[in-house]
Amino acid sequence: MATRPARLFLPGPTEVHADILAAQAERLIGHRGPEISALLESIQPRLQKVFQTSNNVYISTSSATGLFEAAARSSIDRRALCCVNGAFSARWAEVVEANGKPYDVVEVEWGEAITPDLVADALDRAAYDAVTVVHNETSTGVTNPVGDIAETVRDKAPDALVLVDTVSSMGGIDVPVDGWNLDVCLTGGQKCLALPPGLSFAAVSDRAHTRATTIPGRGWYFDWLVFQRYLEKWQTPTTPAITLLYALDRQLDRILDEGLAARFDRHAVMADHVRQWSLERFDILAPEPYRSDTVTAVVNKRSIDVEAMNRYLTEHVDMIVSNGYAKLRDRTFRIGHMGDHTVPEVETLTAAIDAFLET
Amino acid sequence: MATRPARLFLPGPTEVHADILAAQAERLIGHRGPEISALLESIQPRLQKVFQTSNNVYISTSSATGLFEAAARSSIDRRALCCVNGAFSARWAEVVEANGKPYDVVEVEWGEAITPDLVADALDRAAYDAVTVVHNETSTGVTNPVGDIAETVRDKAPDALVLVDTVSSMGGIDVPVDGWNLDVCLTGGQKCLALPPGLSFAAVSDRAHTRATTIPGRGWYFDWLVFQRYLEKWQTPTTPAITLLYALDRQLDRILDEGLAARFDRHAVMADHVRQWSLERFDILAPEPYRSDTVTAVVNKRSIDVEAMNRYLTEHVDMIVSNGYAKLRDRTFRIGHMGDHTVPEVETLTAAIDAFLET
Repeated sequence: MATRPARLFLPGPTEVHADILAAQAERLIGHRGPEISALLESIQPRLQKVFQTSNNVYISTSSATGLFEAAARSSIDRRALCCVNGAFSARWAEVVEANGKPYDVVEVEWGEAITPDLVADALDRAAYDAVTVVHNETSTGVTNPVGDIAETVRDKAPDALVLVDTVSSMGGIDVPVDGWNLDVCLTGGQKCLALPPGLSFAAVSDRAHTRATTIPGRGWYFDWLVFQRYLEKWQTPTTPAITLLYALDRQLDRILDEGLAARFDRHAVMADHVRQWSLERFDILAPEPYRSDTVTAVVNKRSIDVEAMNRYLTEHVDMIVSNGYAKLRDRTFRIGHMGDHTVPEVETLTAAIDAFLET
Repeated sequence: MATRPARLFLPGPTEVHADILAAQAERLIGHRGPEISALLESIQPRLQKVFQTSNNVYISTSSATGLFEAAARSSIDRRALCCVNGAFSARWAEVVEANGKPYDVVEVEWGEAITPDLVADALDRAAYDAVTVVHNETSTGVTNPVGDIAETVRDKAPDALVLVDTVSSMGGIDVPVDGWNLDVCLTGGQKCLALPPGLSFAAVSDRAHTRATTIPGRGWYFDWLVFQRYLEKWQTPTTPAITLLYALDRQLDRILDEGLAARFDRHAVMADHVRQWSLERFDILAPEPYRSDTVTAVVNKRSIDVEAMNRYLTEHVDMIVSNGYAKLRDRTFRIGHMGDHTVPEVETLTAAIDAFLET
C-alpha cells in the first residue's frame, strides 16, 4: 500500500480537489441557526441549476442507496416496473423488494441497455404506477436513453412516476430533469459532482409529492414530505453532515463557473479518448450508442492483473483504476473519467497503462 | 453574524478539535479496496471500547434519526412501548408510527424523567416486544435511569428488546451497553464524541439480530442484517462518508487516550459547575437526580434575550449556547457541556454570561 492513496480514477468515489477537501475543515455551525439556513438557501438554486430543474432538490445525509429507499417508499404505491441492466439497477429492485413493494423486472444482460421498446412492451403487459431506471450503470459503463424511456412511460402509462438514478451521470452527462419530465431524479455526491461521499440529492416533482401524500408507511428519514417540510424553513429534517455541506457549497461554484455545457463536453472528450484507446487494445463492454461518458468498462481480453497494474500506476503516475464489478470483476476493469478529471490526466493514465502493458 | 462561527456550547453539534476537522481533508480512498477495510477493522474494536460492548457496532452514514428507523423496522415486530419525556423520545415514537409499527406511549411532562416504575406499570397493562427509551433527552437535559429501566424490562417482559438512544450521552456519561444488557444502543457522532455530524452508530445484540431475521419489510438502508453482512467483510453496505471516517479514526484515539473514566469525570465536573451556577442565578428544568452531565436546560426565569446573549458571548469569548427546544424555546436556554469541552472553558462561558447579565 502506498504511504498515501493514489488519485482515484475509479467509477466513484472520484478524486476531489484539495480546496474542496479543505473546505470540510472549516469550523462547525449549529444545525438550527441562521447560518445553516443561509447556507441551504444559497445552495438550493445552484443545485437546481445543476439538475436543470425548478423542482426542489432535497439533500440527504446518506448514500444514494438511501434515496432508492425514499423512492420505493414515498413514490411506489401499487406496483413498480424496475429496469435492470447492471448491479445498481438490480440493487434498486432489491431495495423495492426489501420495502415490501410489489414490482416486476424488465431485464437485459449486464452490459446491454434498456430501450424504450422494452419498456413499452412491459408497460403493455401490466399496470404500473412507477418505473425505476438507472441512467448510467456504474457497473457496466452503459448509459440508458432515459429521455426516450421517460417519454415512453408518459405515453403508455401517464400516471406512472418516472424514478431515475443519475448517481454516476449528474454533473457529467446532460440530464435535463425538467426537459425529460423526471418525477424523481436522485444522485450521490462522490461521482461526477466530485465531492467527498456522504451526501445524496433528489429532485422531486409536484406529481411525486402528490403521490406521496396518499401512500401510508413512508417512514420518516427518507420521506419526501418530511424533506419538503424542513426545506420550506431552510433546514434539513435532522442534523446534516455540515462539513460536507461546506464542500458542496464550494464545489457548486466550481461546477457552475466551468459551466454545465463545458463540463459535459469535457466528459465527452475524456470518454472519446478512453474509448478509442480501449478499442485499440481491448474491447468495450457497452455497445454503441450506449457507451458512458463517465465510466468505461474495458473488456480485459488480455487478462491483465488489475492489482499489479494499479501498483504500477500508483508508483509511476499516482493513479488507480477499478476492477470490474461483482460478476464482471475479472472480465472487465473500469476507468472512471468523471468529476473534475481533465483530458491531460486521462491521457497520462492511458499512457501509463500502455507502459505497464509493455513491462 | 460573526465572520467566523463561534465555538459551539450547544447540545450538539458541539465544538470539534481543529486536528479532527483537518483529518477530513485527507485524500479519498476507494470504498471497496483494502485501505477502507483496514480502516474499518481498526475502528471496530475502538468503537466497541467506547460502547463497552462485545456486540458489533454498525456505522451508518446518516443522522441518528436514521437509526430510529432501523430500530423501528428491524427490531419491532408486534408492538412497542415508547417512553416519551422530550422532543427526541417523541420523535422516536413518530418514526415508529411513520413506519407502520403498532406502539403505545408511556409519557411524562418534558423535563421529567421516565422511571422504572412507570415502565413496569405499562408492561403490566399490555404485551410488548420492544421498548424504546432515550437515555439523555437533549431537549430537556434529563438523564433517564436506563440501567434500571432495562433491568425492569428484563424482569417484566423478558422477550422485549431494549432499544436505547444515547445520542447525547455516549462518550460523556457512563453507558455500559453489555453491563446494562441493551439490545440496540444508538448514537450520533456530533455530541459527546465531538465529531463532525454525518455518522451514526448502533451496537446491536445477538438477540436483536435473531429478532430481525423474523421481521418482514425491514427495508435495506437501515437493516441490521445488511449492516452485519458487510461488516463481516470489513465493508459498509454503501459508499460511506469516508472523510468522516478519517475524523472518527483520529477522534477514537483521542477519546481512548483520555480514558472513558476520565472523560466521564470531566463531564461530571463541567456539569456540576454549570448546575451550581444555574441554581444561583436561574433554575434547572430537570429535577434531581436526573440532571444531565452533558446538557443543562436552564429555566430562563430572568427572561433574558438569548440571541442578544449569544451576540455578546460571540464578541467577548467566541462562544455560543442554545435556545430552548420547541415548546421550551422561550422558557429555557441550553448549555452543552459535552465532547471535548474543558472545565476552564465552561467556567469562561459562565463568567461571560455573568458579565452579560450585568450589562
